[in-house]
This record gives sequence, structure tokens and C-alpha cells, in this order.
Amino acid sequence: MRNPHSNGNVPKLEEADDATDGVILGLDGGATSTVCVCVPFFPYGDRFPEPIPILGRAVAGCTNRNSVGVSTLSTETAAKDSLEQVISEALSQSGSDKSHVRGVCLGVSGVNHPSDQGMVEHWIRDMFPSHVKVYVQNDAIVALASGTMGKLHGCVLIAGTGCIAYGFDEDGREARASGAGPILGDWGSGYGISAQALTAVIRAHDGRGPETMLTSTILKALGLSSPDELIGWTYADPSWARIAALVPQVVSCAEAGDEISDKILVDAADDLALSVKAVVQRLGLCGKDGTGSFPVVMVGGVLNANRKWDIGKEVSKRINKHFPGAQTIIPKVEPAVGAAWLAINFLTVKTDVS
Amino acid sequence: MRNPHSNGNVPKLEEADDATDGVILGLDGGATSTVCVCVPFFPYGDRFPEPIPILGRAVAGCTNRNSVGVSTLSTETAAKDSLEQVISEALSQSGSDKSHVRGVCLGVSGVNHPSDQGMVEHWIRDMFPSHVKVYVQNDAIVALASGTMGKLHGCVLIAGTGCIAYGFDEDGREARASGAGPILGDWGSGYGISAQALTAVIRAHDGRGPETMLTSTILKALGLSSPDELIGWTYADPSWARIAALVPQVVSCAEAGDEISDKILVDAADDLALSVKAVVQRLGLCGKDGTGSFPVVMVGGVLNANRKWDIGKEVSKRINKHFPGAQTIIPKVEPAVGAAWLAINFLTVKTDVS
Repeated sequence: MRNPHSNGNVPKLEEADDATDGVILGLDGGATSTVCVCVPFFPYGDRFPEPIPILGRAVAGCTNRNSVGVSTLSTETAAKDSLEQVISEALSQSGSDKSHVRGVCLGVSGVNHPSDQGMVEHWIRDMFPSHVKVYVQNDAIVALASGTMGKLHGCVLIAGTGCIAYGFDEDGREARASGAGPILGDWGSGYGISAQALTAVIRAHDGRGPETMLTSTILKALGLSSPDELIGWTYADPSWARIAALVPQVVSCAEAGDEISDKILVDAADDLALSVKAVVQRLGLCGKDGTGSFPVVMVGGVLNANRKWDIGKEVSKRINKHFPGAQTIIPKVEPAVGAAWLAINFLTVKTDVS
Repeated sequence: MRNPHSNGNVPKLEEADDATDGVILGLDGGATSTVCVCVPFFPYGDRFPEPIPILGRAVAGCTNRNSVGVSTLSTETAAKDSLEQVISEALSQSGSDKSHVRGVCLGVSGVNHPSDQGMVEHWIRDMFPSHVKVYVQNDAIVALASGTMGKLHGCVLIAGTGCIAYGFDEDGREARASGAGPILGDWGSGYGISAQALTAVIRAHDGRGPETMLTSTILKALGLSSPDELIGWTYADPSWARIAALVPQVVSCAEAGDEISDKILVDAADDLALSVKAVVQRLGLCGKDGTGSFPVVMVGGVLNANRKWDIGKEVSKRINKHFPGAQTIIPKVEPAVGAAWLAINFLTVKTDVS
């Protein structure tokens, strides 16, 4: 796996940024935005400089075809345009152009099928000369890489607008849990938490459930005067991210002692931990005696909100109760950098093999 | 309330169908189709012929602006076109034309706001001369009328694609529960039941939940080969009715002894009964001692499927446990006829008042 040319030293930026070594693009196409980073290519196996130098970085709109619930030609065009835009900007900032690019790795949420993956890969291939290596991965794999410096081992849990647990064992076997979208029960996601909160408001309003602080808090946040107006608000725009944006209100209510909000967050923590547990058990990451050490990378606004009611901490507790050897990691770099690390790893492996 | 011209006898069809008395149109605009019936106008208070003669009946596509999750100009146009079409067909079948119409009553699901109601009312007013009375009502009110021959007293529970409980007390006070759509927790609806079933399949597949017979049954029904393909299937088309159409599969699995399916149906029955309970308690329909008599009209494919695992019967049991005086009624006529009865009642009241 180690590049035979590596001397064990970390290359200087000046060396790495020349035309010989070129640059790598790492992309993270989330439900609400797309981030692209441009980093120098270090063909030196697992000996990366830390932090890795970021030569350019750009952000644009959504590339997730599924996030609005429909897949139409116009959303595909918009997704492709977003990709072109962030790539151009990141390259321009880094003083590079497409001819310097050695490899591109894109993590995309919503890439659940070979056909989706193939389409996005095709878009990117069309943007670059044929020798450029292009890798399109589920955003969960990229997020895992962001916590493990590109090594695909362990489990990642993402909880933002949606949620997914994804893992790899040492032999490269993979497994996932959740990540099937709101209709199919991603209950620990930002969308799931917010939808439960909105439901609690409706249930209190029509007499099916107890009163909750969520009513006044959410109505105030949305500028509405009655729970009846929530129905129109909810269905006026089917974007999952718009619903998921109510998580901070739920956390505030739970912190202020609202029992309904507290239960929603406890259930979310249970569901998220269950997703990790399912992946870990299927891959045997914890070893035969259940105490083996493995990383659990935790990514996304729901897990890393850093509030007093700390969902990420509650999930960690539950994971460690089952698996004392689990090492929870909050990545210091964003997923786009994980994508860049992955591209470097893939390219380096290829160099060794050839 | 009684029409002064009434002689207490039921008028013959020949009398009622002449140009003097005219006809009434009753419309039911559900999530999946719109039904229009044309009946003779009987201005005789609450002495209807039973069964009421149906002079014409037509069915067309959807008029529910919310049912696809988005409100666009094209769906509004389609909804309006559907209305025009069923009205023309029903009138044509009855040998009448628009000049014979005395009143129109339309029940529409998705009419949750005065602005929606006003728009649909405006469409219909535009189709008729100005003297024709037009009433647009929540489809729940129309469904109640279909079980009470037009009298607005008691509670109706609808469970089809969506679900809602709606009620009126003797003083005309109204209350509702549920009916807020799938994001806002209509868990006893056909959509809710099916979404829970799909979620159970995904959870079994990724290791978060127990195995269930739903997996093979649903995959077979949809012609899919793996639970992974359910994700693409689910989000390829956001129509709620398409998801809700899986209820028969859930019932079959429950009847065959599948515990997961059984629990989904038990939860649905609990949720549906809870909606009725909320309405009954808010309106005091059961009287002060809780034993008062009142009708509960039960409408929709989920309640009236007439299967061995009988959701409607389970809901009735739960309602009667709380309210021994509740009289559950399965209407003998469709909601569109309820709409016609309502229009006749409204017109007759108006005649008395003027």
C-alpha cells in the first residue's frame, strides 16, 4: 500500500503544488450545499501532512437529486451546474486549472443506486481530460474518511437533514443502516426530529397529545399564529432541509425542561445508536468478545451542535454501553477534505498495483 | 327547519326531476379521484326518500392540491379540469344541464384553509349562473353527512390515503383531530400504515429490526428484488396514494400471523380511536356522564376493507370502550351523496330563513 517513492518525509507545499504532482479535488455534495476543496497531491501512502494544506475552497447549492422528493430534468441540470461552479472556483482560488487535476472524489447523499452514481460520475468525467481519475462515493464513505484520514475502516454516523450509519471492516466488506430517507423511517435525522416535533404540536392542538412548549417555540420561529397554519407551512415546500432546520428549537425546549421535546431527542439518540449497532454487529467490528477497538466517526449538525442537551454525547454513551472499545471521533476536517484524502488513497493504491 | 310546502309525503321521482324543483350536485374530491352525483332536489326538510334516486354519476382524477406535496399552477389546472369534467358527465347522464342545477356541494380533502376553500368555491361559481348555491366543505363534513342523511351531528372518522376525525355538536360547534397529512403524523392513515410497513422492511434489511413477512410480500407486490430497491421506488413518485395502496399487503401479513404487521395495525387502530376520542371529548358528544348516544360515521378503505383482520372493527371496539353510547355507522351511500344531502339541507334551511 506504501508508495515506493516515499521517503517518509512530509513533502513541502512548494514541491506538492507543482505541475508534476498536481492537485486533488475533494467534493461533498450534501442535501443543502456542495463544498469543493483543492489540495496538493501527496503520493506517499498514509503519511499525510496534518493539517492538509487547503489550496482552494468553494461552496454552492444542492447536488442531491432526491432531496426535494422529485427527480426532474431541471433539478439534474441545477445539480450539474452546482458541481461545475464549485470546481471552477476551488481551482481558480488554488491558482490551478483542470490540467493540474490528478483525481476527483465526490461524496453525494442520495447516491443509493448504481444508475445515480454512474450519472454523476459521467458528469464529472465530462469536465476533465480522460486521464483524470474520478471516484463517486456515498457521502457516508467520504465522511468516514474525514475522521480516519482516508482509511476505510470503522463506522461513520451522519445525522444532519438525513441520517445514515455506514461501515467497513478490515477486509473491505461494507454495511449500512438507515439512510433510506424520511418516508422509510430515518427517525434520528434532523428531519425526523423536526417532523416528530411538528406532530407533537398538532397532537397537542387537536387534543390527542399533551401540551408542549414546542407549540409557542416553533410558531414563533416560523412567524405563524396558530398550529392550524403549520399544515399549510409544511406542505408549501417539500424540502426536507427546511423541516430539519427546526432541530435547534426542539433542543431549546428540551433544555428548558419540556418533556415531549426531551422524549423526541432521547428516541432520536436511541435510533441513531441502533443504526451504529446494526452496522458494527453485521461487520463484527467489535471482535468476537465485543470489546475490540474501532473508530466511530460522528458527523452532522444533529450530532455536533455542541448544546447543553448534547445529542452526539447521548449517542456516544449508548454506543459505548454496547461496545466499550468504540472510539468516537468528531472529525477536525470537513467531509470534502475526507473526499480528497480518499482520492489520494485510491490513487496511491493504484500506483502500487500498476 | 321544516319547509312550509312539505306535505310530509316523499315526492315521486317524476315530480322532483322536473324543471321546477331542479337538481342538486354532490361532489366528493378525494385524494385519488373525484366523484359527482346528480340527485333530484327535494325541498322537504329531513324527509328524504331512501335510497335517494341517483340521476347521474361520474368519476374523474384528483382535485386535491396537496396530495402530491406541491401546489403548482399545473396541478390547480388539472384539479379544475377534473371538476368540470365530472360535473358535465353527471349532468349529461341525468338528462339535465347547468340551468337545472339548484345547488352544488363539494367536499374536498386538502381544504384546510379559507384561501383554498375560496379558490375551489370560485372555480365552481364560475361554472354556474349566479343564483346557484355553492357550498365547499371539508370532505370530512361531507362524509359525516353520508352517514347521518345530511345531519351535522356526531363524529366522522375517515381513514383512506389520509385520515381525519371531525365532529359537530347539537349547537353546531365543530372540532377535528388528525387530517394534517403524513409529515404531521397521521399514523392511522393508509399512508401511515404503509410507511410503517416499508420502514419495517428497511429495518429488518439493515439489521435494526426483526425479520418480517412484509419483506417478501411487499417486494412481490411491487415487482422488486431487494429491499434496497424500495428506496428508489419510494422517492420516484411522491404520491401519498401510491404508498397507501400497500395496506392490503400489511393486512394479509397480519392475518398470516406476522407480528410486525399485527403491531402496525394495532397501533393504527389505537391512533384512529384516539382521534375520535379527542373530538368527542372536546365537543362533549358523550354527555356529562360519558354514556350519551351519538353517531360515529366510519368511512374509507382502511376502515371498511372487510377483511379478517378488521381495522374498522378494532377501532369501533376501542371507541365503545371509552364511549358505550357511541353508535358506529358505516354509510350505505358514498360521500358524494352525503354532499348532495348537505346541499339539500343547506338550501332548505335557507328557504325557511328567508
